[in-house]
Amino acid sequence: MNGPAQDIAHLVRSGRRSALAVLEAALSRVRERDARYNCFTAVTEGRARQEAAAIDARRARGEPLPPLAGVPYAVKNLFDIADEVTLAGGKVNASNPPARRDARLVERMREAGAVLVGALNMDEHAYGFTTENSHYGACRNPHDPSRIAGGSSGGSAAAVAGGLVPLALGSDTNGSIRVPASLCGVFGLKPTYGRLSRAGSFPFVGSLDHLGPFAASAADLAAAYDALQGPDPDDVACAQRAAEPVLPALDEGPRRLRVAVLGGYFSEWAGPQARRAVEIAASALGAVASVELRGAAQARAAAFVITAAEGGALHRRRLVTHYDYYEPLSRDRLVAGSLVPAAWTQHAQRIRHRVYREALALFEDYDVLIAPATPVPATPIGADWLELAGKRMPARASMGILTQPVSCIGLPVCTAPIWPGTGQDGHLPLGVQLIGAPWREADCLRAALALEQAGVARTLPL
Amino acid sequence: MNGPAQDIAHLVRSGRRSALAVLEAALSRVRERDARYNCFTAVTEGRARQEAAAIDARRARGEPLPPLAGVPYAVKNLFDIADEVTLAGGKVNASNPPARRDARLVERMREAGAVLVGALNMDEHAYGFTTENSHYGACRNPHDPSRIAGGSSGGSAAAVAGGLVPLALGSDTNGSIRVPASLCGVFGLKPTYGRLSRAGSFPFVGSLDHLGPFAASAADLAAAYDALQGPDPDDVACAQRAAEPVLPALDEGPRRLRVAVLGGYFSEWAGPQARRAVEIAASALGAVASVELRGAAQARAAAFVITAAEGGALHRRRLVTHYDYYEPLSRDRLVAGSLVPAAWTQHAQRIRHRVYREALALFEDYDVLIAPATPVPATPIGADWLELAGKRMPARASMGILTQPVSCIGLPVCTAPIWPGTGQDGHLPLGVQLIGAPWREADCLRAALALEQAGVARTLPL
Repeated sequence: MNGPAQDIAHLVRSGRRSALAVLEAALSRVRERDARYNCFTAVTEGRARQEAAAIDARRARGEPLPPLAGVPYAVKNLFDIADEVTLAGGKVNASNPPARRDARLVERMREAGAVLVGALNMDEHAYGFTTENSHYGACRNPHDPSRIAGGSSGGSAAAVAGGLVPLALGSDTNGSIRVPASLCGVFGLKPTYGRLSRAGSFPFVGSLDHLGPFAASAADLAAAYDALQGPDPDDVACAQRAAEPVLPALDEGPRRLRVAVLGGYFSEWAGPQARRAVEIAASALGAVASVELRGAAQARAAAFVITAAEGGALHRRRLVTHYDYYEPLSRDRLVAGSLVPAAWTQHAQRIRHRVYREALALFEDYDVLIAPATPVPATPIGADWLELAGKRMPARASMGILTQPVSCIGLPVCTAPIWPGTGQDGHLPLGVQLIGAPWREADCLRAALALEQAGVARTLPL
Repeated sequence: MNGPAQDIAHLVRSGRRSALAVLEAALSRVRERDARYNCFTAVTEGRARQEAAAIDARRARGEPLPPLAGVPYAVKNLFDIADEVTLAGGKVNASNPPARRDARLVERMREAGAVLVGALNMDEHAYGFTTENSHYGACRNPHDPSRIAGGSSGGSAAAVAGGLVPLALGSDTNGSIRVPASLCGVFGLKPTYGRLSRAGSFPFVGSLDHLGPFAASAADLAAAYDALQGPDPDDVACAQRAAEPVLPALDEGPRRLRVAVLGGYFSEWAGPQARRAVEIAASALGAVASVELRGAAQARAAAFVITAAEGGALHRRRLVTHYDYYEPLSRDRLVAGSLVPAAWTQHAQRIRHRVYREALALFEDYDVLIAPATPVPATPIGADWLELAGKRMPARASMGILTQPVSCIGLPVCTAPIWPGTGQDGHLPLGVQLIGAPWREADCLRAALALEQAGVARTLPL
């Protein structure tokens, strides 16, 4: 089991290719392709050369190299990068002082030997599902540049899908890893809430923010996840539990997973390609049962309320002083959110807990639940509306309809890219969510690997 | 080391006195004295006789008896008692159906052999520091029935102070165990937030609610606390950590505690008797250093905001339909709280976390911090104002000025009764807070025991 990231690490560790040569190839792909995709908002060439040279020097000294030695990667521009301004997609942040140190997960990638090549485009302040950023331009889907990449981690998914870097990091509050992974056809992991440290990243909604990796294969995703794990007292919500490496477990080979399809709400709001993607995955994983998560619609409503309120609280001072600097696609939601009564968020938090317990009951019988990651494949850039279940729906908000209930209750999810290949969107991918019980990321990644080995989940090279 | 509760258990377990005889004596004291104090809102005679008879039957069969066998106790009327209506001090709850089962802590007291004799008076919905309940009458201070007992667990503290029962349970959101323990001259424990299960108790503020015991000696308090400990999945906030019994540790004898006085805010807002109480305790514990908790005033403000907002959220529907049923002393605060923007509570939660970290830094050098539990001794029932630091202050709200910053950050506190004996209030007690690091209830109880053994902390018999 491997993937482009581990292939690179293997070549670098064995001395068959230098980290610098790998980096130069990545930089030239970025130069060549990114004018088309608009993934990068900053390329950290100087730093990347230093990191790559350091890896090569260690190799020259005969030191053992870490697992991701020489692997180029990039991060959503809400991760702090020392000496770079953390934009979080916002024009209002552009005049902030540069970060003094790297985000914790960037430190961990560096410790694992990976080489940071830059910062990636996103929806402003992570409040969107499309990466149509009014300040830094829309990110384009590598499989059809007239379409959105999804968001808010659109730059991260597109950079991997477009072959610019084999690994990227993003964040997911309501679907911001799973939606772009689905629309760009790559693997993405939103771990259990509290699993990965968020220290040194620009926050959005403390109650819901998760960070996680993107990759071109399930094994690469597991390798990146393993590099990122571990407790961190600098993030209040980060669970103080030891890392539980997944890659060694995957190498042990397949384990029998009890898999069911999430029906009800998750089927009602799925378009034809989404239903087809779930059928393909269910068939490959031997899932015959369909179960319902009671309260899914309420959990989505709760996620909306919590997001608006916490996001609004975070930005309310600057919304007063710098309203014009804010993203037109989200600023009014933030203003409204800053006025939400605490009684509403209290109620939302109660719903969240109730639905969480409903989910726990499902995991008594199943290890993994399958649902589509998005209701439809990538929509055209600029589209305001889409049709779903016979209704005209707001296109941007509706992209999260199937991810929001799941992140609201903090479950780990691996998104695996399926190619349902029907209709006029036949060239576009659509991902499935492989949802695990709390702290069971290993089950999600095993299911993704099984789909990959069955030949139904894959990243198409570009 | 013992106290009236353990003395009773000892007599019952050794067969020198029957649990029924102990109970009848307690019931006759309640009948005799409670007309004066107004502690009880229900006496559960029938159930109590059954529980006592069951203990005696076990003894007759030669079974070993549990640690609190035959000890009469009572609970603040926000604890569920099977087949009784849980009033939580409210007229609006009087027509609710009776509870179907006991609260978890009542179950645990029963398992420990204690005998429940009734439910105790409190401020409506725990929103007050005086137990001047407009529906069920004011609870009176056994050391001066013209004075308040403090609140909101006034009935619990007064029932122990007045010799009606040797143990009682109460709750503390902003000071509701520590304030009445201080004003009535008994020992009270507010454990670490999350230590004791709140399942089956009427909630007030999920982020701040704690339950805990009252007793007439430090060792009795430890015995009750040990009976109550243990994880409980039915309370979201209850830490899933095993019980850490304190009584065996106390029996091992004294341990050197590093003790400091909390100065700054906690000294500024202390009246003369409160300062004297701290001097007495500091001298007995060998505390010479004075330290400051930065952000104490902000933590109190944060506690006010969180309390109003979460309390308001809890009651907002019934405030609309049953406004006239609500306590005139608190209903308008609940209405206002229900309109607080979530942005305010977000900010308050951030302050809470910041001050918590300030406190952790103090516990690197000290095990226990001493502060007064109340700024002044018990005020007259009906008093609206008091003078403090040369200012005219609202009497009811000000009683919590020294407890709110501490519960806001969830630290464990044992209140020990001191008798500063000066001025016109020379007959009245005033308690000190013995504040420990998170999860270090044992340190708080050791400090209380040391004060008791030094003869400066004690419950005066009535």
